[in-house]
Parts: sequence; structure tokens; C-alpha cells
Amino acid sequence: MAQEKKAVEAITPINEDFARWYTDIVTKAELVDYSSVRGCVILRPYGYAIWENIQKILDGMFKKLGHENVYMPMFIPESLLQKEKDHVEGFAPEVAWVTHGGEEELTERLCVRPTSETLFCDHYAHIIQSYRDLPKLYNQWCSVVRWEKTTRPFLRTREFLWQEGHTMHETAEEAIHETEQMLECYREFCEDYLMIPVITGKKTDSEKFAGAEATYTIEAMMHDGRALQSGTSHYFGDGFAKAFEIMFTDRENKLRYPHQTSWGVSTRLIGAIIMSHGDDNGLILPPAVAPIQAIVVPIAQHKEGVIDAAQSLCDRLKAAGIRANIDVSENSPGWKFAQYEMKGVPVRVEIGPRDIENGNCVLVRRDNGEKVTVSLENVEQSVKDTLDALAHNIYRMAKENMEKRTVDCHTFEELEEAVNNSLGFYRAMWCGDEACEDTLKDKLGIGSRCMPFEQEHLSDTCVCCGKPAKAMVIWGKQY
Amino acid sequence: MAQEKKAVEAITPINEDFARWYTDIVTKAELVDYSSVRGCVILRPYGYAIWENIQKILDGMFKKLGHENVYMPMFIPESLLQKEKDHVEGFAPEVAWVTHGGEEELTERLCVRPTSETLFCDHYAHIIQSYRDLPKLYNQWCSVVRWEKTTRPFLRTREFLWQEGHTMHETAEEAIHETEQMLECYREFCEDYLMIPVITGKKTDSEKFAGAEATYTIEAMMHDGRALQSGTSHYFGDGFAKAFEIMFTDRENKLRYPHQTSWGVSTRLIGAIIMSHGDDNGLILPPAVAPIQAIVVPIAQHKEGVIDAAQSLCDRLKAAGIRANIDVSENSPGWKFAQYEMKGVPVRVEIGPRDIENGNCVLVRRDNGEKVTVSLENVEQSVKDTLDALAHNIYRMAKENMEKRTVDCHTFEELEEAVNNSLGFYRAMWCGDEACEDTLKDKLGIGSRCMPFEQEHLSDTCVCCGKPAKAMVIWGKQY
Repeated sequence: MAQEKKAVEAITPINEDFARWYTDIVTKAELVDYSSVRGCVILRPYGYAIWENIQKILDGMFKKLGHENVYMPMFIPESLLQKEKDHVEGFAPEVAWVTHGGEEELTERLCVRPTSETLFCDHYAHIIQSYRDLPKLYNQWCSVVRWEKTTRPFLRTREFLWQEGHTMHETAEEAIHETEQMLECYREFCEDYLMIPVITGKKTDSEKFAGAEATYTIEAMMHDGRALQSGTSHYFGDGFAKAFEIMFTDRENKLRYPHQTSWGVSTRLIGAIIMSHGDDNGLILPPAVAPIQAIVVPIAQHKEGVIDAAQSLCDRLKAAGIRANIDVSENSPGWKFAQYEMKGVPVRVEIGPRDIENGNCVLVRRDNGEKVTVSLENVEQSVKDTLDALAHNIYRMAKENMEKRTVDCHTFEELEEAVNNSLGFYRAMWCGDEACEDTLKDKLGIGSRCMPFEQEHLSDTCVCCGKPAKAMVIWGKQY
Repeated sequence: MAQEKKAVEAITPINEDFARWYTDIVTKAELVDYSSVRGCVILRPYGYAIWENIQKILDGMFKKLGHENVYMPMFIPESLLQKEKDHVEGFAPEVAWVTHGGEEELTERLCVRPTSETLFCDHYAHIIQSYRDLPKLYNQWCSVVRWEKTTRPFLRTREFLWQEGHTMHETAEEAIHETEQMLECYREFCEDYLMIPVITGKKTDSEKFAGAEATYTIEAMMHDGRALQSGTSHYFGDGFAKAFEIMFTDRENKLRYPHQTSWGVSTRLIGAIIMSHGDDNGLILPPAVAPIQAIVVPIAQHKEGVIDAAQSLCDRLKAAGIRANIDVSENSPGWKFAQYEMKGVPVRVEIGPRDIENGNCVLVRRDNGEKVTVSLENVEQSVKDTLDALAHNIYRMAKENMEKRTVDCHTFEELEEAVNNSLGFYRAMWCGDEACEDTLKDKLGIGSRCMPFEQEHLSDTCVCCGKPAKAMVIWGKQY
């Protein structure tokens, strides 16, 4: 017990060393453990339960939009990966290769999927013949592997869990609509369920997905001002369809190529939750995905009737659809408080002899520590209201952080000063030339995060080269 | 349309060539497609939806028993796989090896998990210190890879989806109880949800899991009389714990090794469903896991009001919690009937102008083709009753098949005759010697499926060598 108490105290303060604070959280809140495979982590029950809640909500949203789940093999023959030129160039340098099955060397190497466009296209070539077969709206939940050099739990690991949607459509318009619709789905999920404000926009050509015509993105700002690309949606045109010879007979009985999209979010979202909402006491979980929404802690539990009252309170909350739990262990209330704060449980419910006498209990909010005494009579509604209030408040705080750290820059000098002043989003005009992106990366260490859908005309000229501007870009440092 | 109609007709009759019948079903019912990776299949939406239903039910059962889900990396370093001697001997010949990450050769080969005992043990060594940390009741849903030579969809593929439970306990008794409890959980799931009767028992030493002290199994009999091992539960004692140096301080403050179990079922269960219940018209799905439980087919749908009435009927069934669907495509009713029979939809609901006039609809059962006209008034209950009746009947038929094909054999000659007469389960006594198992495999081509928990004393001597018998064994040919 003493050891665990110390563990709780041992978190690095968030504003002292954000990277160490992050690492402390992921291990001390028991989200992950490091594995024997460098760059791969173990998702522990508490971390995996967050992912299960994310899956459940997103899967429901996908299915409501008509998508169906499938499962593709995890291996891609080298020749299949090579079919689309840009795609293989983007991914080949970072894939894991299987060369032996049992004792035998394979005649063709297989890579462990880094993403599954090639596998889906191979399948679509079998099953798409007529416009009647379209659209195909498929998704899969699986893990993918990218042989990254530097890794960090949730943000960048060699293997990670995700979903990848892959769809095929009769027309470009339909496919573009799907690309936009799924980005909007991700935006809604991040803002309304994870309570993380995001910027929606389009990636510049240099930042788009290998093989895509256009990549749309949701970009979130973490507590320290860095950007986290939290979900992407790609429009492929008919590039892969041509490479994989996928053709269909259209309504005029002519052979045509279908148009394609793909879109994905991953366990990286858990990293986004941690870095958007956490504080010096640990994690703060948005109620929609919190494995435990309310933890009941009995006070003076050795006294007669306390545990019974706490248990029946917990049962009532559960019956009302709240993910409630109770801790009747021998640890002290203080230790329990610290423990569930570390784990980011949104609401703590305290109940002791005096509360029972008065027909009350105490609700303590994780985000601001606010304590209120409420009547047991309609405690279910009080807890629900508190969860809602917390959700709105953590969204508001994250939004405030983003707004505070977003600066409009009209000249290179302004941009340079802003970058030197603090981490954040820098809004500035761009000529559309990749050379300017390279220059800003080299000189200021910032990259183009996206061209937001909500464009503003900040000035006539590119912040970097002074040539006529084509678009407003959000620049920043990213995870 | 003509082409699809032909596809439906093209099934091989079940009693003509069972293997071809099986292959026809898995492709024509659109459960799988073959992939570019030999031995790996694609789970198509209809096949994957069955798996999702299986997952949902089993996951609920596991969680009710206190299990938590986690996710382990898919790679196992070679040195980790080698820690438990029997285990590596069993699995090393059939694993896929990753040797390169990107352009670089790895310093240590990684195998793609064939099963994850070693990964769980590696993690347990980090997190188990005290008896307070026990039991650990973990499970994961993932895919595993075994480099099989001959493969068949669902029954044996190089990659397959499964769940693997891995638990750690203070005492041998607790671990053995867990092993038995999870086997019982599998039995209940197979019999009460998949409607497949199973035999529960213990594997002989030669058939047990690599590294286990004891393996328990549920064995089902397929339509053709062959056995399908449908789920296994293993007791490991403290063998892995010793190999991985997992120790905990017990209640007397002494250091001890914990006791371990693992248990798993896979997409093989879908193969079991197909081969237990299917017939000449295609698949027959148990209602509990059928993606579509009732398909509404409008008759003379061009007539006014028919599609509306069919749609509102479908909506009512959905509102009552039945997984209902409607087919208003331009295909003929006859084509639709054949299509949904092929896909094994338990109940077809026909509704045409005359039915509407009379306030009726027609329910057609997939298992026996029985047609009944029912009132629309409480059609929800009628459909539910029909689903129940079908479920009980397909269980009864599978049970009858198993009983009919199970023969007691007291002598080698009786056994030989039974094997020559027909495929099935042969119950016979065994001395406990592996040599006799080898002899029966060589001479009669049968193996020991299990030593059933329900033992009978058929004779005093081993059916093979004539020495004193130790146990009754179920022998048979297996998939």
C-alpha cells in the first residue's frame, strides 16, 4: 500500500516535463505495460476498456451510415504491395517482413499490413462487376505494423490497433462525399464524445497519404501546444482501381473504374485524451469512454451499515446505466481518492455514516475538485448531471487552450517570433509551394498541419517566400 | 440475375461430396473469399457478422465470470518463445518468422504469435507480486498465425481469429476450477446458442496442448461423422510460471509460483455451424448468431401497398428485437427464396396482396420448409416462437446424428468393423499407452478425441492391446 501511494505521488508535474508526465500517466494509470518487443506495448485492462468504449461508439456510427465489417489477412505479398507505385514508396521503408514459414523460406516475402488498401483492392477486383455491386462500404478493426524508429505509447508504436474503412463508389462525387462524411463522423466523435476540439481541413500534397489524391484530417491541440493528427480520411480517385484492374459495368453498360476512399482512427485517440485533458493528479477521462464513470468510496467503512449503503448506492447507479464501481478494499479513503484521480474517473461518490443519516452523499468532480452534497433521493440524476457538466468543462478548457495558443502571423518575422514565444498553432498564408514547407521546417521546426476548411484571407502573400498566397495553413509542431 | 440463380443451383449435394459441399457453401453463402496469401481467407461481411455475434455473446459470458480484456503484441521474440521447452517444440515448426523491419535485418527473429502464453507470462512476471494481485483473469480477441500445410476455410487457415483466455491463480485447485469452468462455458455456448451438441472430456497426453499438464476439450460431430475439436481449456500447473520466474508472496508471506490456465475458441466455430446444420439448400444458421434472423419477402411487390406493408412488418420485427431485413430488389421471389435459404436465414416471412387483405403473413422455416400462415396481430411472437422451434429442432437433429453414429466397441474386431461401416464416434476402452493410440491411427486411421467426463466401463481390457483398461476413450476421424 505504501508503495502504491508513493507511485501516485511520483508523477512528474505536467508543466515541468510534459513528456515525462505523459509516460508517468500511461504506466501509473495502468493503461499500458512495456513488452519484450521494442516499440510494442501491452494494452492493460484499463487501457483496453477505453478502446472498447471507443470501438463501440464508432462502430455504431459506421453501421448507421451503412458500413459493414470484414476481416482481411494480416499479410500482404510483396508483389501486391508494389502494385500502386506511390503507395509502396510510402510504406515499404517501414514494414515488417515475414520471410520464413516454419522451417521453410517463403518464395515471396510477405509484409505485415501497415494499412490494407492493397488487400481490399485485390478483393474488390473479385466482387465488383456491376454498378449494382456499388457502393461497397467496408471497414475492419485490426492491428497494423509500421517499423518506426522512435516510439511512444499510443502516439507511435510499431504495432497499433485501429479501424480502417475502405469504400468503392460509382462516381468521384460519391467518393468525395464519403471522404468528407467520414471526416465529419470523426470530428463529431472527437468533439461530442472525447470532448476534444479539432480543426478539420485538407493536408498539403507533401503531407497526404501515400497513393491518395487528397487527405482530409482532424487536428487536435495537446496541452503543451503540439498538434496531434487524430484521424484521416483519404480520397483516392481511381488510381488504385486502375492499378488493380477493378472495373464495373455502369448504368449505360460501359466499363468504368470505381472511385475509392479510406479512413482511419487508432488507439492514438487514447493519447489524445491523455494529453488534452490530463492534469497533475493524472488522467481525466471523458465520461463517454471512461471504463468507470463513478467510483463509490465508503467513508469510515468499518462502521455498521456503511458498506451496505455504499453498495446499494453503487447498484442504483448501475441500474440507471451509469458505469459505477465501488472500492471496499482496506486502503484508506485518501489512498483511494488519489488512485481514482490518477485513473481519471470522472466522479467520485463519497458516503459515510453522517451522509447516510442525512440521506445524502457527496459528489466530487475530477476536473475541478468541486464537492457537492446531494440527496440520495435522485442521486442517479445528480451523477448524470455532474458527468455532463464535467464533459462540457473539459471541452471548454481544451478549446480555451487551443484558442489561447493559436496565433495569426502575417509575416515571416511574426511567425518566427510566435514560434519562439510558445508552442501552438500558427495561422499563416502559403503560396502552395512545397519548398516553403521545407524552409519553415528547416528554419522554424514547424510543419503544415492542414489547410482548414474554414479559410480566412490573412494577407495576400506567402508567409515564407512573399509570392501570392493560395491558402491559409495551420502550422505547428506535431507528435 | 441469371448468373446468381445458377450460382445457387450449383451446390454439390451434401451426401455426394461433403468436402465440395462445404467449399460451395462458404463461397456461395458469401462467408469468405480466397486471398492472395495462400492459406489465408477474407471474412466477408456475412461471415464476419456471424463472428461478431459469437464474440458478443461469449465476451458477455467471460466478463460475467470476472474476466477482463487486454491486448498483447502480435510478435514474440524467439528467445521468449523458447523459454518453455515443450511449448516451443510444439509450436516452432509452424510459426511465421519476421526477420526484417523496413530495410534492416532484425538482431533477433520475431515470430507472429501462434498463441500467446509466452507474452502473457512475460507480462505477468511484471505485475504479479502478491496474492493480492491474484487471480488475474485476462482474455484477448485477436488473430493468430500457424503455418499449416493444408488449409480449409474456418477449419484450418494460416491466420485465424480467436479469443485466448490466460489466467493466473494462487492455488492449483483454483486454476483447475477455472479450466473446468471455461470448458463448461464453451459447452453451454455451443449447445444453447449454436445448437451443437458436444462431448466434454479430457485429451490424452499425446493430444494435449504443448506445455499443458491437462487439456480439456469439447468435441462435436459433423454431419459426415467426423469430429471437430471446437474449444479447448488447458491447465498448466506452474510450469510456465517457473520458466518465466513469476512468483508471488502468499498469505503466509512465502514466495510461491502461481498456477495457470488458458482457453480458446476460434472462427472454427463457424465451420462447426456449417457442418452441423447445413443441408442441400445451403447454410442453416442458429438464430442466436444469425446476422439476419428473419427475411421479409414481399410477394407481387409491384401491386399497390405491398412494399409498404412488408416494410412496416419488417420495422415491427426489428422493434421487437428481431434481426429482420427486407428484400425489395427486382429479383423474383423464387430467386430470393433460394438466396436466403443458401444464406441460412432461419425464418422467411412472405407477405402478398391476399395476406394483407386477410391480416396475415406466411412464415417459412429454413430447417424443415414448414409453412404456416399467421396473423399479423402478434406476428412478433410468432416469429420468435418459430426461431425457438427451429433452434430446438436443429439441435435435436444434430444430436440424433451423433447418437446414430456413435458405436460401442468391445474388441478390436468390433472397432475395425465399425470404422469400416461408417464414420462416427467409436467408444472403446484404452490402457493409457500411447503406443495403442499410434496403432489405431496406423491401422484404422482413427485418433483419440477425448476421454469423456461421463465414463462408462465397457470392458476390462484395452480395445487395442488387451491389457487392463484405464479409461473409456472416444475415437474417431477428425477435421
